[in-house]
Amino acid sequence: MIAFNKPFFTGKETDYIKSAVEKRHISGNGFYTKECQRFFEDKFGFRKSILTTSCTDALEMAAILCDIQPGDEVIAPSYTFVSTVNAFILRGAKVVFCDSRNDHPGIDEIKIKDLITAKTRAIVIVHYAGVACDMDEVMNIANENKLFVIEDAAQAIDSYYTGKDGVKKPLGSIGHLAAFSFHETKNIISGEGGMLVVNDERFEKRAEIIWEKGTNRSAFFKGEIDKYGWVDIGSSFLPSEIIAAFLYAQLENLEQIQNKRKAIWNQYFEGLSPIEATGKIRLAKIPDFSTNNAHMFYIVCKSVEERDSILSFLKQNQINAVFHYLSLHKSSYHLANNPLVNLPNSDLYSDCLVRLPFFYELTEEQINLIVSKIMEYFSK
Amino acid sequence: MIAFNKPFFTGKETDYIKSAVEKRHISGNGFYTKECQRFFEDKFGFRKSILTTSCTDALEMAAILCDIQPGDEVIAPSYTFVSTVNAFILRGAKVVFCDSRNDHPGIDEIKIKDLITAKTRAIVIVHYAGVACDMDEVMNIANENKLFVIEDAAQAIDSYYTGKDGVKKPLGSIGHLAAFSFHETKNIISGEGGMLVVNDERFEKRAEIIWEKGTNRSAFFKGEIDKYGWVDIGSSFLPSEIIAAFLYAQLENLEQIQNKRKAIWNQYFEGLSPIEATGKIRLAKIPDFSTNNAHMFYIVCKSVEERDSILSFLKQNQINAVFHYLSLHKSSYHLANNPLVNLPNSDLYSDCLVRLPFFYELTEEQINLIVSKIMEYFSK
Repeated sequence: MIAFNKPFFTGKETDYIKSAVEKRHISGNGFYTKECQRFFEDKFGFRKSILTTSCTDALEMAAILCDIQPGDEVIAPSYTFVSTVNAFILRGAKVVFCDSRNDHPGIDEIKIKDLITAKTRAIVIVHYAGVACDMDEVMNIANENKLFVIEDAAQAIDSYYTGKDGVKKPLGSIGHLAAFSFHETKNIISGEGGMLVVNDERFEKRAEIIWEKGTNRSAFFKGEIDKYGWVDIGSSFLPSEIIAAFLYAQLENLEQIQNKRKAIWNQYFEGLSPIEATGKIRLAKIPDFSTNNAHMFYIVCKSVEERDSILSFLKQNQINAVFHYLSLHKSSYHLANNPLVNLPNSDLYSDCLVRLPFFYELTEEQINLIVSKIMEYFSK
Repeated sequence: MIAFNKPFFTGKETDYIKSAVEKRHISGNGFYTKECQRFFEDKFGFRKSILTTSCTDALEMAAILCDIQPGDEVIAPSYTFVSTVNAFILRGAKVVFCDSRNDHPGIDEIKIKDLITAKTRAIVIVHYAGVACDMDEVMNIANENKLFVIEDAAQAIDSYYTGKDGVKKPLGSIGHLAAFSFHETKNIISGEGGMLVVNDERFEKRAEIIWEKGTNRSAFFKGEIDKYGWVDIGSSFLPSEIIAAFLYAQLENLEQIQNKRKAIWNQYFEGLSPIEATGKIRLAKIPDFSTNNAHMFYIVCKSVEERDSILSFLKQNQINAVFHYLSLHKSSYHLANNPLVNLPNSDLYSDCLVRLPFFYELTEEQINLIVSKIMEYFSK
């Protein structure tokens, strides 16, 4: 069986964990946490990077920092993971779902404007598959309406957006806040793990407080204040040094991992382009303004029946392909308190998108086999 | 310098992490998570144990499970860590602080009753230093008033309470819900880490949903339902398998760790009893209804000035002793929205309690030195 995902290990992870153990500091905010945060700040120019126990937790920090209150509205895509919106619902927000683009599962930027009301406080966008949303468009709408923008960059490490000014910016550096994931299904992993990026100076000090359970402990240890105490809400958002040590080994190998993943992506793309040319499937379209970080490879087929039929054909051939998100606007949780709206593109990707096996150790032979089986399916 | 704390490693932690890596499952809810949870359910008879990324997160799960709503009141001790109450404040609760006992830093059980109003929903008690609160008293008050009881058992692993019925019950098994910590300062550690215990059947299914980001994924993988989706609020409360693997190595050595810690505690107690006999300090009093899990050793001195003077004397002698919590009812965060109340015992322990170095590798010679330095201080 070709797995859908297989976490990749560089071999240095347990060495660094042993080193964290030898340093006798395995709770949060130690040597490796600081090294990981510095890595992101140096390589991607993020104003401030803060490791968290998950991308979910980074989104929760973002919701607290935006001071979301009961009744506030937050606009988000329906085609996303539950945490994108649960983080804001936990603060009392009402989520207003926006459709996906027709040519891409990401949020349809031009539809955001119509969803804004006097209660809207923030727009959460998701860089699906590491492919950028049109951030010029999103930031303009947000600035005109004085809204916060949170980039759910869970899948978007090492991907870039080039706006109208021609400047190439890393995803996660553009919104007021951004959240990354290091879950084992991502390009760079630590099992569970995430990171908040603070791009807006106003949030910087409070982010450290919320991270440290609502105390000003960070400022205390930096010598900025002479005693620390309870000053705010917060949680234990910081991961163990064991997790940070693991992550650091991965980050050191970012370039190697990305090169390999891009080669895999390109092999899939070349292999499947002839089928796309027949009109039987669609492949990912990378807009000119976005790079491709090779987070995932998907095909979009014609119907949910065909999707199920392909998945089961591949499974019979020992290939574990999977579908992805279910439209959140149709979930039982959302519908319990909200009317059903029509978001056809979100439903399209819920029904028709198939993710193919994608991991560092996937071999050329395995990719050839997968491609040939998909060809076989469509030649029936 | 004798450190205040030094995390202890059994030597098997990185072996088990390697094994988790070899199993190719390092996100949450894998082999080691299940093994750890089974360990607690088998050894302590907990109805359901759920690993979390921290004790803070376990308390947040408890607050969600109790369905705390804005305006609800929650009674908690003032002499505790901020997470005991922040978890409930995040759900909109108003915290009503209760004083500590005079003879012990734990909540003064008989004072709880006067704090109950029509809005009270829950009582959070803290088994300070692993010493039980009088749970018969607490459960009676709660049952009479239909309130939930959450045991903050952060420090209370492997400690027991014997109630009027003569039955010896593990701490964490008595309230409706309980939260444990595996932070590196605890008896059993995983850097950061925690666990929710569900003792009330009503919370069992929803706890799994909230743990899995508000989805019924757990039920899906157990074959109870045929597809999973978004059904509730929730967060990513589950720790990486890397953390669970580390924790499992510790749990295997629980008895050895506890025996050693109890020997350290007893040596301190015998060494310092002569000073207590002079009336210059107080040592911990373990009530008849509680066991002692040797989580910490503290002395209570006469004033904040004496506390500071002892701490600096010990520091001059290369001994790192520390004070503990600051009364939460006097914090800037609480006072911003609440009047100042008088909780003299909480203030007493904030001002006068000194925690002595306490860790597995502390030697008899080091303890003798610490005891002799304290004797020297008080003979001045």
